[in-house]
Amino acid sequence: MTRVAILGGTGYTALELLKILLNHPQATVTAVTSRTETAHLGEVHPSLAGRLDLRLENLSPQQLAERADVVFCCLPHVASMEAVPGLLAAGVKVVDLSADYRLNDAAVYEKWYGHAHTDAGRLSQTVYGLPELFADQIRGQSLVANPGCYTSTSILALAPLLCGGYVQPTEIIIDAKSGVSGAGRTAKQNLLYAECNENFMAYSVGAHRHQPEIEQVLSTASGQAVDVIFTPHLIPMDRGIEATIYALPAKPATQAELMAVCREFYQGKPFVRIVDRIPGTKDSANTNFFDLTVRVVKGRIVLLACLDNLIKGASGVAVQNFNLIAGYPETMGLLPQ
Amino acid sequence: MTRVAILGGTGYTALELLKILLNHPQATVTAVTSRTETAHLGEVHPSLAGRLDLRLENLSPQQLAERADVVFCCLPHVASMEAVPGLLAAGVKVVDLSADYRLNDAAVYEKWYGHAHTDAGRLSQTVYGLPELFADQIRGQSLVANPGCYTSTSILALAPLLCGGYVQPTEIIIDAKSGVSGAGRTAKQNLLYAECNENFMAYSVGAHRHQPEIEQVLSTASGQAVDVIFTPHLIPMDRGIEATIYALPAKPATQAELMAVCREFYQGKPFVRIVDRIPGTKDSANTNFFDLTVRVVKGRIVLLACLDNLIKGASGVAVQNFNLIAGYPETMGLLPQ
Amino acid sequence: MTRVAILGGTGYTALELLKILLNHPQATVTAVTSRTETAHLGEVHPSLAGRLDLRLENLSPQQLAERADVVFCCLPHVASMEAVPGLLAAGVKVVDLSADYRLNDAAVYEKWYGHAHTDAGRLSQTVYGLPELFADQIRGQSLVANPGCYTSTSILALAPLLCGGYVQPTEIIIDAKSGVSGAGRTAKQNLLYAECNENFMAYSVGAHRHQPEIEQVLSTASGQAVDVIFTPHLIPMDRGIEATIYALPAKPATQAELMAVCREFYQGKPFVRIVDRIPGTKDSANTNFFDLTVRVVKGRIVLLACLDNLIKGASGVAVQNFNLIAGYPETMGLLPQ
Amino acid sequence: MTRVAILGGTGYTALELLKILLNHPQATVTAVTSRTETAHLGEVHPSLAGRLDLRLENLSPQQLAERADVVFCCLPHVASMEAVPGLLAAGVKVVDLSADYRLNDAAVYEKWYGHAHTDAGRLSQTVYGLPELFADQIRGQSLVANPGCYTSTSILALAPLLCGGYVQPTEIIIDAKSGVSGAGRTAKQNLLYAECNENFMAYSVGAHRHQPEIEQVLSTASGQAVDVIFTPHLIPMDRGIEATIYALPAKPATQAELMAVCREFYQGKPFVRIVDRIPGTKDSANTNFFDLTVRVVKGRIVLLACLDNLIKGASGVAVQNFNLIAGYPETMGLLPQ
Repeated sequence: MTRVAILGGTGYTALELLKILLNHPQATVTAVTSRTETAHLGEVHPSLAGRLDLRLENLSPQQLAERADVVFCCLPHVASMEAVPGLLAAGVKVVDLSADYRLNDAAVYEKWYGHAHTDAGRLSQTVYGLPELFADQIRGQSLVANPGCYTSTSILALAPLLCGGYVQPTEIIIDAKSGVSGAGRTAKQNLLYAECNENFMAYSVGAHRHQPEIEQVLSTASGQAVDVIFTPHLIPMDRGIEATIYALPAKPATQAELMAVCREFYQGKPFVRIVDRIPGTKDSANTNFFDLTVRVVKGRIVLLACLDNLIKGASGVAVQNFNLIAGYPETMGLLPQ
Repeated sequence: MTRVAILGGTGYTALELLKILLNHPQATVTAVTSRTETAHLGEVHPSLAGRLDLRLENLSPQQLAERADVVFCCLPHVASMEAVPGLLAAGVKVVDLSADYRLNDAAVYEKWYGHAHTDAGRLSQTVYGLPELFADQIRGQSLVANPGCYTSTSILALAPLLCGGYVQPTEIIIDAKSGVSGAGRTAKQNLLYAECNENFMAYSVGAHRHQPEIEQVLSTASGQAVDVIFTPHLIPMDRGIEATIYALPAKPATQAELMAVCREFYQGKPFVRIVDRIPGTKDSANTNFFDLTVRVVKGRIVLLACLDNLIKGASGVAVQNFNLIAGYPETMGLLPQ
Repeated sequence: MTRVAILGGTGYTALELLKILLNHPQATVTAVTSRTETAHLGEVHPSLAGRLDLRLENLSPQQLAERADVVFCCLPHVASMEAVPGLLAAGVKVVDLSADYRLNDAAVYEKWYGHAHTDAGRLSQTVYGLPELFADQIRGQSLVANPGCYTSTSILALAPLLCGGYVQPTEIIIDAKSGVSGAGRTAKQNLLYAECNENFMAYSVGAHRHQPEIEQVLSTASGQAVDVIFTPHLIPMDRGIEATIYALPAKPATQAELMAVCREFYQGKPFVRIVDRIPGTKDSANTNFFDLTVRVVKGRIVLLACLDNLIKGASGVAVQNFNLIAGYPETMGLLPQ
Repeated sequence: MTRVAILGGTGYTALELLKILLNHPQATVTAVTSRTETAHLGEVHPSLAGRLDLRLENLSPQQLAERADVVFCCLPHVASMEAVPGLLAAGVKVVDLSADYRLNDAAVYEKWYGHAHTDAGRLSQTVYGLPELFADQIRGQSLVANPGCYTSTSILALAPLLCGGYVQPTEIIIDAKSGVSGAGRTAKQNLLYAECNENFMAYSVGAHRHQPEIEQVLSTASGQAVDVIFTPHLIPMDRGIEATIYALPAKPATQAELMAVCREFYQGKPFVRIVDRIPGTKDSANTNFFDLTVRVVKGRIVLLACLDNLIKGASGVAVQNFNLIAGYPETMGLLPQ
């Protein structure tokens, strides 16, 4: 049994983490923190009423280390890199769900996030927590940088064909769409129900922070410089990401062959489903599955991919990472054992 | 042609007012104010881009009076009663969409709104702007208190049978449901998309401010003390109110007779539709119609009523009131002439 | 380990059942039937892709009995009573999710469902599958009539105060609202997205089939003739039922006392949460919880209750019933063990 | 005053047409047809209750010609080309909202629609009813082929830069998304609320019938062979189309220059808004506006365009076409005159 704590417990990823951990046979949630709230969890997250008898607490890294073996850090970026070094120094393992340890290069971080990185020395050593690609490196680590939601969708979709040399690493267009929960739980006018409902729009065109993350990880994974155009959109629904990705073939291959390449690449990966039909976000909602299909249209390769942004895109993969660093089967708490 | 201005132009009722006024053949919008914003209207309300070339301005009552003959006051309560006296003194007519002039009794106002009324002397003289009941009193007034959205739904539903003596004035239960736009455009966590979507809940049970307003107006209209239990709920949709109202019969009448009473009561009222089918909110969405039907269930009278909270429940009825005080046909700008 | 089968596997309740059963440590799904489809489950229910390797089959009761120890019958009413006798005769136990065995009286069934009951002899002996009230009778049965969704919401909300003599058994008003999944998966124009979305309306006013079921069960449970007015409404969302219930007090009691009565009544019931805040449907979505609070408004008792219509209102309670008849802990597969 | 009729009045485009025509000062709706229904319009379209006192009728072309000067044909494809020749022969003018007269080439029609064209001789002479490009040809015509919704979005977005030689005519990717009303009002399981809600998915990838229409019209308009990849997606909302379009530059130009080219191209076009901000579908919902902005991302041109699929994408542009063929100002009934 492993004692786990959540650092930053008021948002949606923390809520999803708690729901998963409640069903995890080897995890016990011992603390959930907040810098501002001291309410009972059931008040902050009414869906947890009667399921977890904890209040939010403001705990130091030292106090957390006394209570937990592994900490899930659900703080926003910047806040995360202020907290993580202390946690590691205190001997706890950390799955960091923020963006602070995902990029290898402090200069790239500073460019996209507008803050100097205060723990830059750790960047190049931190493993990127996408178990379908990096499970071996994640196992046993003390710190894992949990991936972004758009990022996981894009990387998992493109990795098989990029690594296999089937698509050109440039001229890749990722047209991605997300449910509103991906934008967080902070009160902002543009996230109000009456603003988002019955509305669909692109945002951060050419300027979204997940773009350099996608490029870095795909470049590393495929051993070549990958360059993408990434356009996110907001869908009037709670959860789910769909990415329609357009790429140029690098060598001849039929649609069936490309599907087979994907199937082969993810052989034995329990959360990836290569499907014949075009996936909808609802197929993987509330699960840790990633759904992918391939089409060839007028000689161009079109990838269609879906996942649940809060689970496979955040808290579910965080539990995969937890399992790997804590020595449990990767699917524990996520699939029937 | 009448020059009109909007006091408090950043919210949803102001937006709907502007959309209606753009189609009003006898109204010219000359100013839209904000105490904090100076942006072009098309930035604050993207749907108005290219339709109205005005910037938000911070104008004094005096300045407004120079620009407009009639002001629609879309400020929140308290702010409204601070602005209205100056406007009236400056010689402009006012349709006040806030709650500040709806209640006759300053003590009742203070109890429900938690503020002393600073213009209490005007309360008892201000006409309640529900034209289906009070058109004659509204005509030519300088100040009209535009009704609340739940209030209009409830009053218009109950008035025919209460005034006709067909239902008992007590033991009335109003179970009302509203789309989220009724809660306004201020950024609050509980109004975020991801909180309201796929959610339905009651709120302010037994404590909503529209209850005393309903009771006051129905008591006045029917000449007896009317007492209601009012429960509002939030529906995951933009706009529309549905009220299911349960009342006890005061004298024998069949369902068909009660329908006939309603039809007779609203004879010649262009925005009321007594319908045979059960109305849905979508039937009257984006219109100034109020839909009503009557059912008799196990000897009890059930009224089912719908309207668009932003139009018939706010900005559409405000234009009805504008037409009445400015001397235009009541339907101008709202129905084909 | 118990072998289970689903009779009628193409609808939403079957899908939810399968999702729950996949996580049930003592159930193995051996067959899922359809009279018309032979597709793989992952095609009919894309969310099940890769999770259950079964095709839909058209099986006789005899064939089902060879494959399963317990059958969940998800057929529509009438179809269900044609299949159940054969299943029981073949020695399998049945949890029937249709309405066919819920009412005790064949005449009442015929009046509300418009069909003569062809297995009327079994009606009075069949236990009503609401474990919070009837767990002892359910245990070990061969046939359980799984309750309706509106029914469970209403009964669970009213039972404590009715059984305790705190509310009058007549003059009860149940204003209930449901997400659209409750209407099933058959293609009908009035259930199209563009009809239901941004719409809210009552239906079957005074004529919904769950009314006699509510009255029968509450009368049995409380030992007095219970009479209700029941009004269902459709909410533009997938899942969730909210009921706002108005009742007259039968004896003096404060709101706090009534809350205490409810807490006491459901002491030790793992799926009932008596909450202080007003519950929203989202709090219990995707869970088997039932949430309830009590308010006293102007001397009248207002109950506010929520559950997930597909889980606690259908497939989750079906698994509770399965656990009881198969001898497993009531919460198995539904809560962490 | 012009007498108009709707051929095929039960669907969503007919409903929107009727709403617009009710506000058109020079149009009188004299008949609305259906081959199967004879109900009052207010029963088929509850939002029309009390607004138009007509029943659906089954009328021959001859009968229609006696009643109307202009017919809006809202039949499905194939049915439309069976009706149109008779109408024209009887002397009425026709705005055809189906796809039957949009393509110039009968072979292309047969390939994409799976039916031989039975009125092929008229194809090459029929004007394509996109007034922003072809107003001069439309004026005074007897038959206008009203464009498809995705088509108008795509063509209006691309036309300025293609006609100006700023983008390459091949390698164009159109990633388009539509609200569900675009799929029509026929009862189909995949269009049920509980299927579409909280779901987002692509469909008809590389196989949607609007692709050849987009290519044909853009090729004609720009005088070069235009080739596009077109991917439609379904958004869980009622109305609105967003297209994010990726194209390669054909000559150097800054983002500001491209915006200026678009503004210049649509100078004097009352329904096109070139906006600085990224448009959302809600900005143009319930209006006849088309919103467009341009971004340059990593040297590639990204166009972001929105319109209301039922209005600017169908019934609103149909009224523009009506105005042009009947000799009224293009904006009549659509904008304040």
